[in-house]
Amino acid sequence: MSHPIPSRSLHLGMQEGELRDKPYATFWNPRIAPLVEHAREALLWGPLAAPLLPGLDEAPRLLDAGDHEVENGHGVRDDGALFLAVRTAMPDVSPAMVDWWFGWHGQEPQRYKLWHPRAHVHACWGDADPPGAKGRARYVGRVSFVDEYIGSRLQQVTIRFVRPAELGFDEAALADPAQATVVCARIGLLGLPVEAGWLVHHVRRVPGGAEMRSRFWLGGPHGVVRAPGFVGAVASRFARRVASPSLEEARALLVHCSQEMSHLASFLPKLYAELHEVP
Amino acid sequence: MSHPIPSRSLHLGMQEGELRDKPYATFWNPRIAPLVEHAREALLWGPLAAPLLPGLDEAPRLLDAGDHEVENGHGVRDDGALFLAVRTAMPDVSPAMVDWWFGWHGQEPQRYKLWHPRAHVHACWGDADPPGAKGRARYVGRVSFVDEYIGSRLQQVTIRFVRPAELGFDEAALADPAQATVVCARIGLLGLPVEAGWLVHHVRRVPGGAEMRSRFWLGGPHGVVRAPGFVGAVASRFARRVASPSLEEARALLVHCSQEMSHLASFLPKLYAELHEVP
Repeated sequence: MSHPIPSRSLHLGMQEGELRDKPYATFWNPRIAPLVEHAREALLWGPLAAPLLPGLDEAPRLLDAGDHEVENGHGVRDDGALFLAVRTAMPDVSPAMVDWWFGWHGQEPQRYKLWHPRAHVHACWGDADPPGAKGRARYVGRVSFVDEYIGSRLQQVTIRFVRPAELGFDEAALADPAQATVVCARIGLLGLPVEAGWLVHHVRRVPGGAEMRSRFWLGGPHGVVRAPGFVGAVASRFARRVASPSLEEARALLVHCSQEMSHLASFLPKLYAELHEVP
Repeated sequence: MSHPIPSRSLHLGMQEGELRDKPYATFWNPRIAPLVEHAREALLWGPLAAPLLPGLDEAPRLLDAGDHEVENGHGVRDDGALFLAVRTAMPDVSPAMVDWWFGWHGQEPQRYKLWHPRAHVHACWGDADPPGAKGRARYVGRVSFVDEYIGSRLQQVTIRFVRPAELGFDEAALADPAQATVVCARIGLLGLPVEAGWLVHHVRRVPGGAEMRSRFWLGGPHGVVRAPGFVGAVASRFARRVASPSLEEARALLVHCSQEMSHLASFLPKLYAELHEVP
């Protein structure tokens, strides 16, 4: 006896009628702007010297005043983890708008596609939307299942949002979301008991808007497997190979992140102004 | 008893006296201009999402008005083929000049070298020049054997030019070579019974000259072997690995194509004006 698996209709781009009745239909813009100059420079540099690449335990230093040594770049750490950093200018954006976006976009695949029209395919939450939750409370503790192209390849990714405190951030310093926020999440590969890495997006007020400082740690010690004992240890070794992205993939992710965050910044202030009351 | 293999004298660049008595000697220009902006952007983007990359069967859509979604870019399709696209502005060029060039350049290695002075090594036809043939008729149906560097490596390539109709193009729409032409060819690796891919250069009139839209499909289902039965099947599997270029090679080919076509455009109008009566 066979059980048909309900298939999801996955497609890149918008099909006719897909945005019908969506109040955000006019925000669909499939034109991606050219890469920003500092992302181009980071790609041309290629991998950086390992000691320049911070560990996950240094993430809380994002809240220090000033800039880090690597605000844009990528490379392989001595512990085997891939690290990448990208900064995105977000004129007219406030950190609170970014919190709103992270809670709002996962509700419908079409919202997720606004973000990167040439790479985002599907998104849904692992649970029901918490009624009335606002700001960080709408996404922290939840899991978003996304399908997206990184380079040429479709990836099924789980994004498990965690409290900034879980990565050691001082949440007292984040009390005013008009001034700063930090989006933190564990990244996993769907269908495998693998947790492949971490992402952190720090957003802080700057004159004229905000800037986002994105950080990824992938593979190496972060390519952990959720399985107990010996099986876990063996699987973990295997998973590290499977879940360890190549430099080529890190490059593709840097491009993807820079594009999606710049594209988001291009429409977020107007989208927020018009629709932040729409659940 | 040993038989010496007659060696061809292959060299990159022009040796002293090599252009003596050539009426096109003054067109030798070893300076390659910087890469055009949209090619730089395509290289920085890196591989694109697979669904954005058209199949060979979609090539005839080049004759539609307007632009394709990917006019500059590369990536790996879901069928395993590498795809790449590059656009080249060709001021003061007519599509008919490009047809003339494809028939004319293969006659002497020195002509071929004008095209990409830092990569082209040798070219010759597989047959005698058809007397009096003009336009497309001088190259379609013929095989050009070329030696050229793609990246650091010397490649021996066969270019078997075919009628556009063989790839499904509506030749009625190409009746006026002053308005448009399409150069179509099967690409193979010399010395192996492998056919590695296809190239298509669509040239159309635009205000002030022409534009060339180049497309390559390499490897994957296009890495076919010409050998019958079981041997063919085994060889084919092997050949697909051998003949499937890596992303790095696709990148190198994108650079090479953009350079040679921009370089060609820099001298073609004057070359044609002066020498189109020279067989």
